[in-house]
Amino acid sequence: MGEFSFIQWIRERQRRRKDVILGIGDDCAAIDVSSDRLCLITTDMLVDGTHFDLEKCTVRDVGRKAIACSISDVAAMGCQATVAVVSICFPNHSTERFARKLYKGIWSIADKYNIEIVGGDIISGDCPLCINVTMLGRDDGLKPIRRSGARVGDMILVTGTLGGSLLGKHLHFKPRLKEGLILNKNFTIHAMIDISDGLTADLNHVLEESHVGAVLYEDQIPISEAAVKMSKETGKIPLYHALSDGEDYELLMTLSKGQAKKILESPLFTKGTFSCIGEVIKNSGIQMKFLDGSVRRIKPRGYEHLKS
Amino acid sequence: MGEFSFIQWIRERQRRRKDVILGIGDDCAAIDVSSDRLCLITTDMLVDGTHFDLEKCTVRDVGRKAIACSISDVAAMGCQATVAVVSICFPNHSTERFARKLYKGIWSIADKYNIEIVGGDIISGDCPLCINVTMLGRDDGLKPIRRSGARVGDMILVTGTLGGSLLGKHLHFKPRLKEGLILNKNFTIHAMIDISDGLTADLNHVLEESHVGAVLYEDQIPISEAAVKMSKETGKIPLYHALSDGEDYELLMTLSKGQAKKILESPLFTKGTFSCIGEVIKNSGIQMKFLDGSVRRIKPRGYEHLKS
Repeated sequence: MGEFSFIQWIRERQRRRKDVILGIGDDCAAIDVSSDRLCLITTDMLVDGTHFDLEKCTVRDVGRKAIACSISDVAAMGCQATVAVVSICFPNHSTERFARKLYKGIWSIADKYNIEIVGGDIISGDCPLCINVTMLGRDDGLKPIRRSGARVGDMILVTGTLGGSLLGKHLHFKPRLKEGLILNKNFTIHAMIDISDGLTADLNHVLEESHVGAVLYEDQIPISEAAVKMSKETGKIPLYHALSDGEDYELLMTLSKGQAKKILESPLFTKGTFSCIGEVIKNSGIQMKFLDGSVRRIKPRGYEHLKS
Repeated sequence: MGEFSFIQWIRERQRRRKDVILGIGDDCAAIDVSSDRLCLITTDMLVDGTHFDLEKCTVRDVGRKAIACSISDVAAMGCQATVAVVSICFPNHSTERFARKLYKGIWSIADKYNIEIVGGDIISGDCPLCINVTMLGRDDGLKPIRRSGARVGDMILVTGTLGGSLLGKHLHFKPRLKEGLILNKNFTIHAMIDISDGLTADLNHVLEESHVGAVLYEDQIPISEAAVKMSKETGKIPLYHALSDGEDYELLMTLSKGQAKKILESPLFTKGTFSCIGEVIKNSGIQMKFLDGSVRRIKPRGYEHLKS
């Protein structure tokens, strides 16, 4: 693979944003931030065998996922994603065709979300494919929504349905950027996070940062069809997958009862986008209110990578 | 290694900057850019076996180098480095002790340059150690110095001495951030780049972006002691190493004769920091004026990683 011819190909095909003063091709890129108050920044690294498996997905999927993960992080702050830099370590002897497919995956989602790839680093080594995306965002005059703002009495809402993302959604999810922005502009959200590690694991991040606890309602968790399908393979109940599987990249938020009601009835969102799955309580940790009326503590379970 | 305990350790030890509104611990970091015009961004990925060799250096050296490379990119724009995010893929079964040493290397230089590590991603995989740094910078009211501004008649200046960096400098170089800023504030620099690929290779980037050529003076190239030492091992002449070796991370710039004279005589810099090594001409490519008076075309030679 010719590194310079590949970079030239990227430079020619990259769509440009107006606020990018300097794109690919210099020591740094430069972005006009003169009308901004805050610059958001997030970074995600993905490596073959841990976050994806090139024997089970295409390299285009990998490019797509790498960008989408970072967009989801900006969405979780209720802010606007703008530009990204992408570093890739290709396994030695990778072909330029392979590299171009990766970039086509990157653009397939970057273009859709109006994100310009303003720079990067292309290297190779005796290693599996490794890709790192750093994404910048802007506040657009809004306050970023942190993990640490959950308050006792808050309702807990999530978008979409959960569980079994390994059956496909972990590669093809749509980051909730639009929803995050609408939420931040039109409602008062106390805390927000995207579900990458798993519902209970990510809820636990919010609870720990906010020094509160939560009770979840067993019958309100939005279980995905994939979770049901997955449960037939694993022998575990679908609820287990909805609670524990990672990489759904849905949004989880806490907010007052009044605001929650407004969101659930709002015409700004597609009907059924949100589920109210529980509430924030004083004690630490997560409890579950089961259908039989009993309330028991549950352990936050992290995302178990692709080992299964 | 406990990922969360490690991140907690990082959060507690990280020095804070005033313009960082949100540091490590949320979906994104947030930086106050309300007084800035431009946000600079650069990213560098380093992998064991290609950019460093853990059999020949410490993991602390690796952390140091990863940050220093990115600072050098911001220096090459004549701007100020501010914050960074760091992604690390640790080989499976790495110890927390190993991880902490890497971070101590990162801080050893980040602290010195007042750079806050505002976020990152810690993963592991069946792969060699891989580290990615994305660095942000600010223009501080100055114009970033691009590669593309070289003009016919410009003098070509470099900082420091060149060649043989593999003998140690490639790990322990001091990025020329201060010099880059002084140059941008006090002089008119037409084009600038840092020498990472090698003198002729990086000069060639400037020439190609500026659509000009250059002639170098054989007797003016600042050959390092390391280049002389290296030549005894390789059998090549020291000049070869000064022209072709990479990773000296010195600055190369082009500017008018008058400005060059001012810099060479300026009390703002330590005496001997700069050498005038040639001039920009109309034709494309690089020529060398040899001591015997002959002028011959030379080929830009890229940096050959750690293969030697």
